Amino acid sequence: MTRIAVLGCGRIGQMHAANIADHPRASLAAVYDLHAPSAEEVAKTHGVAQAANPEEVFGTAEVDAVLVATATETHADYIEMAVAAGKPVLCEKPIDLSLERVNRCAETVKGSTVPIQLGFNRRFDPGHRAARDAMRAGEIGALHQVIITSRDPSLPPRSYLEAAGGLLRDMTIHDFDLARFMLDDEPAEVFAIAGALIDPVLGAELDEVDTAMIILRTADGKQCHINNSRTAVYGYDQRIELLGTKGMLQSGNRKPHEMTRFTSSATEVAEPFLYFFIERYHEAFMAEITAFVEAVEQGSAPEVGFDDGRKALVLAEAAYRSLAEGRMVRVEEIG
Amino acid sequence: MTRIAVLGCGRIGQMHAANIADHPRASLAAVYDLHAPSAEEVAKTHGVAQAANPEEVFGTAEVDAVLVATATETHADYIEMAVAAGKPVLCEKPIDLSLERVNRCAETVKGSTVPIQLGFNRRFDPGHRAARDAMRAGEIGALHQVIITSRDPSLPPRSYLEAAGGLLRDMTIHDFDLARFMLDDEPAEVFAIAGALIDPVLGAELDEVDTAMIILRTADGKQCHINNSRTAVYGYDQRIELLGTKGMLQSGNRKPHEMTRFTSSATEVAEPFLYFFIERYHEAFMAEITAFVEAVEQGSAPEVGFDDGRKALVLAEAAYRSLAEGRMVRVEEIG
Amino acid sequence: MTRIAVLGCGRIGQMHAANIADHPRASLAAVYDLHAPSAEEVAKTHGVAQAANPEEVFGTAEVDAVLVATATETHADYIEMAVAAGKPVLCEKPIDLSLERVNRCAETVKGSTVPIQLGFNRRFDPGHRAARDAMRAGEIGALHQVIITSRDPSLPPRSYLEAAGGLLRDMTIHDFDLARFMLDDEPAEVFAIAGALIDPVLGAELDEVDTAMIILRTADGKQCHINNSRTAVYGYDQRIELLGTKGMLQSGNRKPHEMTRFTSSATEVAEPFLYFFIERYHEAFMAEITAFVEAVEQGSAPEVGFDDGRKALVLAEAAYRSLAEGRMVRVEEIG
Amino acid sequence: MTRIAVLGCGRIGQMHAANIADHPRASLAAVYDLHAPSAEEVAKTHGVAQAANPEEVFGTAEVDAVLVATATETHADYIEMAVAAGKPVLCEKPIDLSLERVNRCAETVKGSTVPIQLGFNRRFDPGHRAARDAMRAGEIGALHQVIITSRDPSLPPRSYLEAAGGLLRDMTIHDFDLARFMLDDEPAEVFAIAGALIDPVLGAELDEVDTAMIILRTADGKQCHINNSRTAVYGYDQRIELLGTKGMLQSGNRKPHEMTRFTSSATEVAEPFLYFFIERYHEAFMAEITAFVEAVEQGSAPEVGFDDGRKALVLAEAAYRSLAEGRMVRVEEIG
Repeated sequence: MTRIAVLGCGRIGQMHAANIADHPRASLAAVYDLHAPSAEEVAKTHGVAQAANPEEVFGTAEVDAVLVATATETHADYIEMAVAAGKPVLCEKPIDLSLERVNRCAETVKGSTVPIQLGFNRRFDPGHRAARDAMRAGEIGALHQVIITSRDPSLPPRSYLEAAGGLLRDMTIHDFDLARFMLDDEPAEVFAIAGALIDPVLGAELDEVDTAMIILRTADGKQCHINNSRTAVYGYDQRIELLGTKGMLQSGNRKPHEMTRFTSSATEVAEPFLYFFIERYHEAFMAEITAFVEAVEQGSAPEVGFDDGRKALVLAEAAYRSLAEGRMVRVEEIG
Repeated sequence: MTRIAVLGCGRIGQMHAANIADHPRASLAAVYDLHAPSAEEVAKTHGVAQAANPEEVFGTAEVDAVLVATATETHADYIEMAVAAGKPVLCEKPIDLSLERVNRCAETVKGSTVPIQLGFNRRFDPGHRAARDAMRAGEIGALHQVIITSRDPSLPPRSYLEAAGGLLRDMTIHDFDLARFMLDDEPAEVFAIAGALIDPVLGAELDEVDTAMIILRTADGKQCHINNSRTAVYGYDQRIELLGTKGMLQSGNRKPHEMTRFTSSATEVAEPFLYFFIERYHEAFMAEITAFVEAVEQGSAPEVGFDDGRKALVLAEAAYRSLAEGRMVRVEEIG
Repeated sequence: MTRIAVLGCGRIGQMHAANIADHPRASLAAVYDLHAPSAEEVAKTHGVAQAANPEEVFGTAEVDAVLVATATETHADYIEMAVAAGKPVLCEKPIDLSLERVNRCAETVKGSTVPIQLGFNRRFDPGHRAARDAMRAGEIGALHQVIITSRDPSLPPRSYLEAAGGLLRDMTIHDFDLARFMLDDEPAEVFAIAGALIDPVLGAELDEVDTAMIILRTADGKQCHINNSRTAVYGYDQRIELLGTKGMLQSGNRKPHEMTRFTSSATEVAEPFLYFFIERYHEAFMAEITAFVEAVEQGSAPEVGFDDGRKALVLAEAAYRSLAEGRMVRVEEIG
Repeated sequence: MTRIAVLGCGRIGQMHAANIADHPRASLAAVYDLHAPSAEEVAKTHGVAQAANPEEVFGTAEVDAVLVATATETHADYIEMAVAAGKPVLCEKPIDLSLERVNRCAETVKGSTVPIQLGFNRRFDPGHRAARDAMRAGEIGALHQVIITSRDPSLPPRSYLEAAGGLLRDMTIHDFDLARFMLDDEPAEVFAIAGALIDPVLGAELDEVDTAMIILRTADGKQCHINNSRTAVYGYDQRIELLGTKGMLQSGNRKPHEMTRFTSSATEVAEPFLYFFIERYHEAFMAEITAFVEAVEQGSAPEVGFDDGRKALVLAEAAYRSLAEGRMVRVEEIG
């Protein structure tokens, strides 16, 4: 059993703590949150210790590895502390909202063999992964186009938006990672448009957007489209489509069950899709823990590493420049 | 072009007349109806002659073949007249409500090589046929079970029910034929239950049922289930399922188009199924005409012949006996 | 936390033990199996005590309730012991293969308020339950027909078949229970056919069947069809369909994920259905534990009780009589 | 009956001739093709006159209206001749490959009330139209995003590509029109990428692309994505998706029938989609004729007029400029 401590006991930290506790090959070692009552509740639920501070977590031999689900601005610090302490770390995305900070962190951890895994959980979704596996196995021949549909059910609260760092760094960053994963190649160019269509007033106040379309292109011409919205009232909309010379693959949405209705006005009526990431990506989050446990057990480099976190952020930065300048931006312009 | 005359200008006769007029290898030669104004309208629509009586149709060299869509009690007479006149005939089901009359007709036409085709149009449905073809090609290995779901959208008018001869002879007869087609074998035993669940008062007055379940078994044990209802408010429900040792085949319902809705309360919401047989089985009715034209052109035995009409009626009679006696009835008890 | 001991550590006992261990409101208290090494392994996996004998389980205050997943012939004994010990019991189906033994057990436990829950897990499947809830809420008006498709992926081993008590008591018994659940009423009549179509040689040797069709009818005429097979090579096939005057409800199969393929020869190609009951009904088994925990906590009668187990067996007996006599059998003939 | 002559008897002209001949409110008046044997064959098939030259068609009182399906470079001439002759005209897209020629044609026909309809048949597809109708009826609230997937099954012959005028003017032009139709608004900006991914050698030789992605934005910020490819080996891929604040609408692909296969390796296996536009858009082409007949009968402006043809071409030109300059192009830059 790999003993994993969880830093950060907000919504996603609570989820990770529960997943670790349920995981057949992991156990929850301890929890910590800057806001002590949050940690206390999670500690009590799972009957584990509440750490007084992060140092305690990184300093004890009772903890094999650390999962970081704290506020974004602390991610890079904790990664550095974990590496210094020799503790493998699974860090939620993004590494930081500032590419400069990410680059400094990269310098700091350079050369270390401590496993660092980034929380791009969607790579572990059974459907998405089956699509990529089939593509890599040659089932659709040469890949030409990737279409990623990624829409949240509703606008998050204003407080969340104020801290999130912008749609492209907060939400689209998952899709930038998926684009790299599905293209099996690096995007060389980025074009983006975005607007505050759902709540223009809030958008103006926060200088934030809620609806976006992006185009990516690799050096050899493969094309990728991402569309984002924060108003998929029919449920969390998470789809991937791969077009190649020999066929197409689609990874689609999940429903809570397979009951359908047929009435005088409609047929094949299904339930709304699973509401949000905790439900939709439950299996992915569990598989993410499994991958982390394996990296910890073997001391090997995780499948999704620090550099994947950095590259997704670079794409977000390129997209922001595209938004500002209304043109295709070469990724190498960013760094 | 095969010149086909249509006897009977009710709803289904009108449809056949239009289909023949549209058919690339057939032309509408003439129309007749006991109720002259009905024939007059159809004749006018298609710019063809209205026959004064059936004899005129059977007697002229301008007519290559005849389609019979008159009242059921005249079918056997017209088949006999067609055979006597040497005119190939496509007759709507059933041949007659009386098995005794059908048997006499069989005697009368015995030995003739004039093509007689029965109007079991569903055999020509592209989906149903593809299922049967796949089954015969061995795609599902040995066939074990056939499930036929066959439900009309609503109760027909009382006047129709009074003349129809009972649910099993009027509606289920199509399914009995499909059962034989899909089993690729003869049912040896029949069990049936039925009730007037939709309109018990009407059922009692007419001694008629509106909802039924039937089980058929072949000599070598293959099983078939048919379920019928006259109240599929979600559209004409026409499904076939074949289970074999290597897989399953399903032929499903048709919708008017592929637009679907996704809202906060439901996803994948499709339109009601095509309302009734004229829409649902349009391609099947056209393919039925094609098959008839080919039989006429080649003077060959139609794929669906007189004996198929007789055997379906025998199954209906066996089912009625099963209803009366609450037991499995051997088909050979009927004849 | 309700502390539940598991008797029987075969495949289904292991699954229940794991589900209880994972359950947020239950804990695994102890395990027992006549074959000690089986219990030892499960005890070790979950870090719980292995009981030396059932008496130990029923005798200790450390156990709040008992789940019985032993060989069928011991079920009634353990139910009686549980009631005597005042321990709520969740017993796998069937209560016994002998209706006489079931009736004796009923006599023995009569008057007791100790919760006895029967393992008809499918009632707790989210899709099946949503269908029933919608039906009871009046969404489809008056219910007329229920169609239950229930097919196992493959023949179980000969040793299993020798002990199982026959297809209708072993496998169809789930469908008889579902029929009662979905009809929301008691079947009054039963008709059945069955054959050894998959393995006729084995069938002859064991006097066992592998493929069946059944028709049930309630006193007020509602119709139900069940079809069973042990050779659904495309995965565990578990479907329910409810037809009413205002619409239809379907509860369908589950796939491992939502990835589909589109090639030059086929479109919308999905994975085989989840292979078998442990995967397909995982949520149902968990919800079954939840229902049991609630009954234990509240000392209330479980939603699926002893009498449900008895009535399903009565339907199986009626179906066997129908097989033997080729006729509709009234349930009251059995008991 | 509106008597329609067809100019141009290639593949699409033949289809239109057959559709007109089948149409209940239209008749085929005459046919013409520069290549006389082509016209002769179509004339013979439908038993109509073959015109010696276009002037004959425009000059006779026997022709009520003209359908132009000739080579693109003649379209504008025939539109002008039709208007001069007072004959309503339904002209295949595009009006011309040169925007300058289109503008001159616009000048020439300005002020005329002769109905000019452009052959943007997809607007008449029942699914696409139902989606637009539902959107306009407010079913999905405020429209935010439109996704158009439009992929041909395979590369056309080299000779076709040489004359077609480029992917964006030949194929995407339909999608530009659909974008305007679905957005119910004018795109104000265009961004495009494209490449010769399917056949790079041919692409280099012809300076042609075969795979494209486009983003459009309206003045008020609505977003539209189009993706195109000429290698959808799974059939003609024609999908539209509309996202709004209250839901989503999708108009999907069509299959030849509803038969599906279930085997040990796959479930829900459907046929490839209908191969190409003649099959996929059959109903749309018929409805297009109906709309034209109504415009002719009433002398009213067709739903899809000359200006729609011009605007779609302007979007194509803007997209080509975007390709060349790697930036978002304002449509008003083009004209």
